Amino acid sequence: MSTQQDVLDAAARARAASHGLALATRARKDAALLAMADALLAAEADLLAANAEDVARAEAGGTPPNIVDRLRLTPDRLAGMAQGLRDVAGLPDPVGEVVRGSTLANGLELRQVRVPFGVVGMIYEARPNVTADAAGICLKSGNAVLLRGSSSARSSNAAIVAVLRDAAVGQGLDADVVQLVPGDSHDSVKALMRARGLVDVLIPRGGASLIRSVVEESTVPVIETGVGNCHVYVDRAADLDKALAVVLNAKTHRTSVCNAAESLLVHAEVADAFLPRVVAALQEAGVTLHGDDSFTAYDGVLAATDEDYAQEYLSLDISARVVPDLDEAIAHIRRFSSQHSDAILTEDQAAARRFVAKVDSAAVLVNASTRFTDGGEFGFGAEIGISTQKLHARGPMGLPEMTSTKYVVTGDGHVR
Amino acid sequence: MSTQQDVLDAAARARAASHGLALATRARKDAALLAMADALLAAEADLLAANAEDVARAEAGGTPPNIVDRLRLTPDRLAGMAQGLRDVAGLPDPVGEVVRGSTLANGLELRQVRVPFGVVGMIYEARPNVTADAAGICLKSGNAVLLRGSSSARSSNAAIVAVLRDAAVGQGLDADVVQLVPGDSHDSVKALMRARGLVDVLIPRGGASLIRSVVEESTVPVIETGVGNCHVYVDRAADLDKALAVVLNAKTHRTSVCNAAESLLVHAEVADAFLPRVVAALQEAGVTLHGDDSFTAYDGVLAATDEDYAQEYLSLDISARVVPDLDEAIAHIRRFSSQHSDAILTEDQAAARRFVAKVDSAAVLVNASTRFTDGGEFGFGAEIGISTQKLHARGPMGLPEMTSTKYVVTGDGHVR
Repeated sequence: MSTQQDVLDAAARARAASHGLALATRARKDAALLAMADALLAAEADLLAANAEDVARAEAGGTPPNIVDRLRLTPDRLAGMAQGLRDVAGLPDPVGEVVRGSTLANGLELRQVRVPFGVVGMIYEARPNVTADAAGICLKSGNAVLLRGSSSARSSNAAIVAVLRDAAVGQGLDADVVQLVPGDSHDSVKALMRARGLVDVLIPRGGASLIRSVVEESTVPVIETGVGNCHVYVDRAADLDKALAVVLNAKTHRTSVCNAAESLLVHAEVADAFLPRVVAALQEAGVTLHGDDSFTAYDGVLAATDEDYAQEYLSLDISARVVPDLDEAIAHIRRFSSQHSDAILTEDQAAARRFVAKVDSAAVLVNASTRFTDGGEFGFGAEIGISTQKLHARGPMGLPEMTSTKYVVTGDGHVR
Repeated sequence: MSTQQDVLDAAARARAASHGLALATRARKDAALLAMADALLAAEADLLAANAEDVARAEAGGTPPNIVDRLRLTPDRLAGMAQGLRDVAGLPDPVGEVVRGSTLANGLELRQVRVPFGVVGMIYEARPNVTADAAGICLKSGNAVLLRGSSSARSSNAAIVAVLRDAAVGQGLDADVVQLVPGDSHDSVKALMRARGLVDVLIPRGGASLIRSVVEESTVPVIETGVGNCHVYVDRAADLDKALAVVLNAKTHRTSVCNAAESLLVHAEVADAFLPRVVAALQEAGVTLHGDDSFTAYDGVLAATDEDYAQEYLSLDISARVVPDLDEAIAHIRRFSSQHSDAILTEDQAAARRFVAKVDSAAVLVNASTRFTDGGEFGFGAEIGISTQKLHARGPMGLPEMTSTKYVVTGDGHVR
């Protein structure tokens, strides 16, 4: 049978399973999540053995050590996956929440109620822990999930999903609420992207090129996530001590994440005071600066091109520019930002207000590190990704963002 | 210059104009809406003359009279357009609404605030009144709009948009907050669908084939609207008098709209009592039934095929079937419904609850006509369309549904 047909069959099974899952009580879903956590821990030896196959294959193929590290499971990482499932069990069930309700003038009762999407497709890269995280969040929000991890993690993902499915069945759920997408080739991704009517939403998580190709090719609605060309703008009225701490934190706290800063803008009036400090501190932390003429006056700073300003480095690099005023900072951000997270450092209320109003990003931060744009930091308890699109959900997506709504209209024979 | 480039240029102007509009106060937007209403009435003679060109062209081309009627403007219809703009001015401004807010454990202040999408593309068919309605709703929600009406209404739309733009400028807004998409051919629609990055969301309003082609071809995010294969299910526990009134209302109150009933399901236990009454009443109202064997036993009822059950007639036709039980009614709806609006008639609380839980449509109605799924009826004051997709908005879309949100995070030099 063709890969395409295999994927459509899996999607049809997911659709069938989603009907029962949509009606499952919170008690049943939480029991399944806890059982899944226990089962992952009980299967530690099998899961590590399966993962060792992926790691050996990656190493034999010459995969760089940092990518192999992302692929690797350890007892600690497994424990983290299990704890993640338990945490999701502890969160409120979004399904059934009444978003709004009223009684209309004619006596009709109107309620808008959260319901699951139905079937969610996740397309993601190396880390096998995403497999359990995504399965848990989808299950709790009442969605059947089709998981399409990277082929480099195929043994790990297959082993994890087998454990999760068994645990689901043990709690009276259909095994097909969690499935791996069959097939390893791009054909299987393609089939998933064309499974309109069977799959309700696709969430790609990974690099810019993965996300772009899904957005361009998919006929299934997509929630775009995660590319972050994030800016920190140090205003003329910034407290430069706070600014220095925020720039360092935003750039160096963790470089491989989408909410890390990739670009630094400094108001000309504070350039003489701030540049020596920030260049020294960043270089001390191992950061390579790619700057304009004001910055290249310092030793070790490379000259920036427009590609630098447009780039999400995800490394110890940062682009940097001195701007003549706030409006030029805003114009620069409008031109280059991926509209993920952009921050201003200022003690000037009017400047903060103008920046917040005019910068159109999922998160706009005042005197705070871009690293705070995160479901955990925002108190959502669990996060499936950070949406950088304007439809449906924008910014960190928790459980409520994994639902749709329906209107329930109750009357007594009402006609127009 | 090519059509494609013309459209991209218009989109770029809309993008530029959207920045100012996003920050416009409610007072300024409302003043512009009221000025637009006045200007439409003042330009009555010009607008009717432009419309007469469209009507003459349509009649000369042999367009059916009912389509010509939808194209026609009259002083009454113009007054209705003006009143629509005034009504929108009277509605609350969704922009700036704080959807949620909290102070995090570390003292960061978090607010989720409604913001405009930016640039909205509307693709729609014959009626020129949609031009003013859509412009008004987009303006109030802070969105620049690119209007792509049907070429049959091109003279009317051009005249209306010219009046609206003048009125906007008179109130200090950029003329390019409202634009017609240049070009008459499918190339201009195609260019609009590919203007990702310049256009934030596309909303097609019209027949199933228009919507399908936009959904399939667009790389700009789409909100799917309006195809309604709506069902009325008469349960074994229905009050048959109420059921008769609701079926008649849902089918015949207005046949050309997406919330009209297109399919009737009747529980077998009440078929003997209900079928003679409902067949007679529908036929009396001029409705042609397309039914299963139980229905074709009555004079004048045609035999239904699966195509009938799948069809959105938008005419005085209805498909009809007797089902053995509630679950078969639900299964039929799952198979054939366009997930717009589906109704149950029952006095049995358990049956109502089961139907509401298991039917996954934008609106599920209990003892009420499907005709109530409407922004006006729901009290939204204005409606840009009825979404039948699960992402972003589902059901009637009012002003809040025409916005995105952003997170504003305020600290005092906070770092992680």
